[in-house]
Amino acid sequence: MEIDAHTGFCGVIGNPVEHSLSPAIHNAAFQQLRLNLVYLAFRVEAIGEAIKGLRALGGFRGASVTIPHKVSSMPFLDEIDPTARHIGAINTIVAKQGALIGYNTDATGALRALRGGVGSLAGKRVVMVGSGGAARAIAFALAGESGLAGFTLLGVDANERSRLAADLRSKTALSVEEAHLDEAMLEKTLPASHILVHCTPIGMSPKTEGTCVPASLLHSGLAVMDIVYNPRETQLLKDARQAGCVTIPGLEMFLHQAAAQFELWTNHTAPADIMRAVLESRFR
Amino acid sequence: MEIDAHTGFCGVIGNPVEHSLSPAIHNAAFQQLRLNLVYLAFRVEAIGEAIKGLRALGGFRGASVTIPHKVSSMPFLDEIDPTARHIGAINTIVAKQGALIGYNTDATGALRALRGGVGSLAGKRVVMVGSGGAARAIAFALAGESGLAGFTLLGVDANERSRLAADLRSKTALSVEEAHLDEAMLEKTLPASHILVHCTPIGMSPKTEGTCVPASLLHSGLAVMDIVYNPRETQLLKDARQAGCVTIPGLEMFLHQAAAQFELWTNHTAPADIMRAVLESRFR
Repeated sequence: MEIDAHTGFCGVIGNPVEHSLSPAIHNAAFQQLRLNLVYLAFRVEAIGEAIKGLRALGGFRGASVTIPHKVSSMPFLDEIDPTARHIGAINTIVAKQGALIGYNTDATGALRALRGGVGSLAGKRVVMVGSGGAARAIAFALAGESGLAGFTLLGVDANERSRLAADLRSKTALSVEEAHLDEAMLEKTLPASHILVHCTPIGMSPKTEGTCVPASLLHSGLAVMDIVYNPRETQLLKDARQAGCVTIPGLEMFLHQAAAQFELWTNHTAPADIMRAVLESRFR
Repeated sequence: MEIDAHTGFCGVIGNPVEHSLSPAIHNAAFQQLRLNLVYLAFRVEAIGEAIKGLRALGGFRGASVTIPHKVSSMPFLDEIDPTARHIGAINTIVAKQGALIGYNTDATGALRALRGGVGSLAGKRVVMVGSGGAARAIAFALAGESGLAGFTLLGVDANERSRLAADLRSKTALSVEEAHLDEAMLEKTLPASHILVHCTPIGMSPKTEGTCVPASLLHSGLAVMDIVYNPRETQLLKDARQAGCVTIPGLEMFLHQAAAQFELWTNHTAPADIMRAVLESRFR
């Protein structure tokens, strides 16, 4: 596709954005479907000015929003999707007939990735490790699923953890147990659990040897999802694979949050295989 | 070039922009020099919001500014180049270390096109027909050249014409004669003139048969530049060619204002031949 006077644009708003993989995967997807769109990276400090500016630029179709603007961007939008409002953060802006609407596809993406690994979530007992922004998005996504048999939230930041648990209890029907994250608690909860969702930065490059779950506690009845995607296989996922677990790498979640954004912007089914191939090529 | 997280962007700010040729020629030039830049078209109503927003978006390198924002954009810039300040209009924004600077390359572009046709302007007597925005830019550009032997401004809008003549007299050293545009006045001035610069919309598609200069007054000692570029050869230029005049088509001026913008944004010499080929392909 050649860029012309009709080419629309999307982009990622964050700081830093120099290492973002989003331009590569979204541009590949636009090209695959021969959509007249490009996707750029916008390093932004003044988030309000940036959003008001994007609103004034004809051709703006939407944006990915990343750290540090997932919360601070919200007051400048016209509308926030209910799930994103409950989470209290967005990762996506969609321009629709002059209005800017906020969504959170981290939630959608996590659910899609999880379902891709384990199928239905009905009757499953879930342990979530970590209580930060990603944990919050995934927990609210899970809370939207009916039939979970249990949800246990483990974390080391007691305030953050209790706030998330309280928000889940007051805004959703999810029944939440919460406790301090330590080995004893993992030893108590993991044997009877079906899904472990790891939502802390432990294991992320360059400290790739780290894991907060002892390998001895992993068992073949457990599916393990890690939000960390650099390295592609974290120590936790390596241990899980060796224990016979179904593993769901962070790259799969990243892929699906991007695919969900693509679909919001374009109303086309995302070419997930193409997007995955681009992502994987970046990690080879 | 693939678009990635380091790709910078430029664009044209105007309303409408759907028919702009700028994305085609600038993107071709960026590709030719393998610069990691893209050029988009931004239809803009709220010019202040748009400019403040572009300032907040990392990766913004500059813009072309066209109707109706050539004057209204100026208060939102950090600095205006002296020639653009005298003209009272910009057509270019350059982002330089966080500051936005306004330039007018309509002036530069007209001079480059004129020199390409007639060589040195020293000792030349110039007649300008029309006194609007384009006339103003070109007149100030000519005023920056030393050694013009005469400058006559002809127009039908007496107020606009007198204002331009007064501005030229007060801000530059150009010696200006001005008069109402009619056949008698053309008959009086053209025989002793070397350059005719046509700056009205007469002859523009779809009313392509129009011209405000009778063919009988054109002579082989006259070079004729027309700012109208659609059609590529206006009635005036056709008559001029048949009279043996050197002719400078509007497309040449359009090309050179774009080349000058390209050079301000990139600090590279513009690949004018590539840009001209793209322009010409659009008119075939």
